[in-house]
Amino acid sequence: MFRPVLHILKIGGKLIEQPQKLEEVLKVFHQLEGYKALVHGGGKRADDLLKQMRIKPQMYEGRRLTDEQTLDVVVMVYAGLLNKKIVGQLQALGCNALGLSGADGNIIKAHKRKVKDIDYGYAGDIDEVNAAAISQLLGAGFSPVFCAITHDGKGQLLNTNADTIASSIARAMTGHFSVSLKLCFEKDGVLANPEDDQSVISQIDRQAYTAYRKEGTVSEGMIPKMDNAFEALSEGVIEVIIGSPKSIGEGKATRLV
Amino acid sequence: MFRPVLHILKIGGKLIEQPQKLEEVLKVFHQLEGYKALVHGGGKRADDLLKQMRIKPQMYEGRRLTDEQTLDVVVMVYAGLLNKKIVGQLQALGCNALGLSGADGNIIKAHKRKVKDIDYGYAGDIDEVNAAAISQLLGAGFSPVFCAITHDGKGQLLNTNADTIASSIARAMTGHFSVSLKLCFEKDGVLANPEDDQSVISQIDRQAYTAYRKEGTVSEGMIPKMDNAFEALSEGVIEVIIGSPKSIGEGKATRLV
Repeated sequence: MFRPVLHILKIGGKLIEQPQKLEEVLKVFHQLEGYKALVHGGGKRADDLLKQMRIKPQMYEGRRLTDEQTLDVVVMVYAGLLNKKIVGQLQALGCNALGLSGADGNIIKAHKRKVKDIDYGYAGDIDEVNAAAISQLLGAGFSPVFCAITHDGKGQLLNTNADTIASSIARAMTGHFSVSLKLCFEKDGVLANPEDDQSVISQIDRQAYTAYRKEGTVSEGMIPKMDNAFEALSEGVIEVIIGSPKSIGEGKATRLV
Repeated sequence: MFRPVLHILKIGGKLIEQPQKLEEVLKVFHQLEGYKALVHGGGKRADDLLKQMRIKPQMYEGRRLTDEQTLDVVVMVYAGLLNKKIVGQLQALGCNALGLSGADGNIIKAHKRKVKDIDYGYAGDIDEVNAAAISQLLGAGFSPVFCAITHDGKGQLLNTNADTIASSIARAMTGHFSVSLKLCFEKDGVLANPEDDQSVISQIDRQAYTAYRKEGTVSEGMIPKMDNAFEALSEGVIEVIIGSPKSIGEGKATRLV
C-alpha cells in the first residue's frame, strides 16, 4: 500500500530558548516536503514564570511535579506563549501551521499518572492518539504544531513529556503514512567520540546500537532517546533522525533504521 | 442558494470568571444544533497574572494598552489557559472543540493599530478573516473555539477585542452559511426597563432600535454592542441574539433582525 511521507519534527526546550536557533529549525521544518507536524518542548520559560509568580519549580529525577498552580503555568507557557509564537513565526515563513494541545479535537487522551512512591500531580500518561483527526488536519493542508499538554477527556488538562508525545504521534500515524521521526537537539547527531562534534555516525541499526552501548559510545543521556527511537521503529516508523537543525536540514544527521 | 446554519456564540469575560456560569454556557453551546463556533473574551484573569508578575495593567477608555510584556501575558492567558480549559470542558461534554488563535491556520490577520493620540501597543485591528479555513475545520467536524489573539502574518501576535472578532467572523462566514450571532452576557436580553430584569424585549429591528435609543431605553453600554450587531445584520448575518446563557438556551433572549 502506498503511504505518503509524514515528517514529525520534535524540537527540545533548549532550541526554543534561543531565538536564532528557533528560527533556524523552523526554516528547516518549513522546507520539509510532504506532510509534516512539529512537536515542541517547553524549556525553562515555565520555570522563569513560576519564579516570577514566586512558585518554586519542583522536579524529581528530571520530571516536573505538577500541582494545580504549576499546571496553569505550563498550560499558559506551552499551549499559549510558545505554541502561538511558533505558529506565528511559521505562518510568517509561509507554512500553514495550526497549534494544538491534546485537548483540541480530542487529539491526545491521557490519564493522570497513578501515585506510587511519587505524586507527579497533573502529569499525563498517554492512552490514545486520535490519528483520524490528525489525518484530517493534514489533509486539509494544515501543519499541526503540538505542545506538550494532553487531556483526560473529562475536562482535566495534563502535562506530558514532549518526547513521549512525538513518538506516540509517530507510532499512531504509521497506519496512514510513512512516518519519519526527527528528533532535533543541539548536537549534529550521535557521536562516535563524544569529545569530537565532527564524529557523527551516519546510520545506526539495532545491532550497531547494541554494540555502541557495550562500547560506551552511546552515553547516558542518549540511551532513553535511542531506546524510544528503536521502539518507534519496531512499531512501523520508517526512520528516526537525530541531529541539530543544521545537520537535519543538510541531511547529515544520524539515521536510525 | 441553501446555506447551512452556523451559530457563533460569543461569551464575555465575566461569564468565564464564574465556573458555574461558564459550565452553563458551554452546555448551551454544546446543545446548539448544526455548525458552531465559540469566541471567548479574557476577563480579569490576565489582570490577576499581571499583578502577580508585578506589572501594572494599563487601560485607556476601557481598552488595554498592550506593551510587549502584557502581550505575552494575554497570549498566555487567552490562547493558553482559558482557551484550553474551555476546549477541555467542551470535550468532556462530547463537543469536538478545537481551540484557535488568529495565527493558527492564518485564520485572522490583523495589523498593529496605528499610533495617533494613544499608543495601544500590540493591539490588532482585523484586516481579513480566512473563511475558507474556518469552513474546512467546520466541515471536518470540529467546533472552533476562538480566543482574542490575532497575528500580522509577519510573526507578530496581536491583542484584539473579542466582540470585534466575533462579529468579523460572523460577517466573513455569511458567504458559506446562514450565520446566527449570539452575544452572551449576564442579562437575559435587552431590557425595556433597566430596573426590571423581567422586561426582556423579544425582538428589535433597526426602526425599533432607533426609537429605543431616542427614548433612552437602550443605554450607554448597550449602544456599541447593538451598533455592531446591526452592522453585522446589514452585512448578511441572519440574526443577532443578545442574552444570558439561560435565556439563549431557552430561546427567550432578545433577537435583533
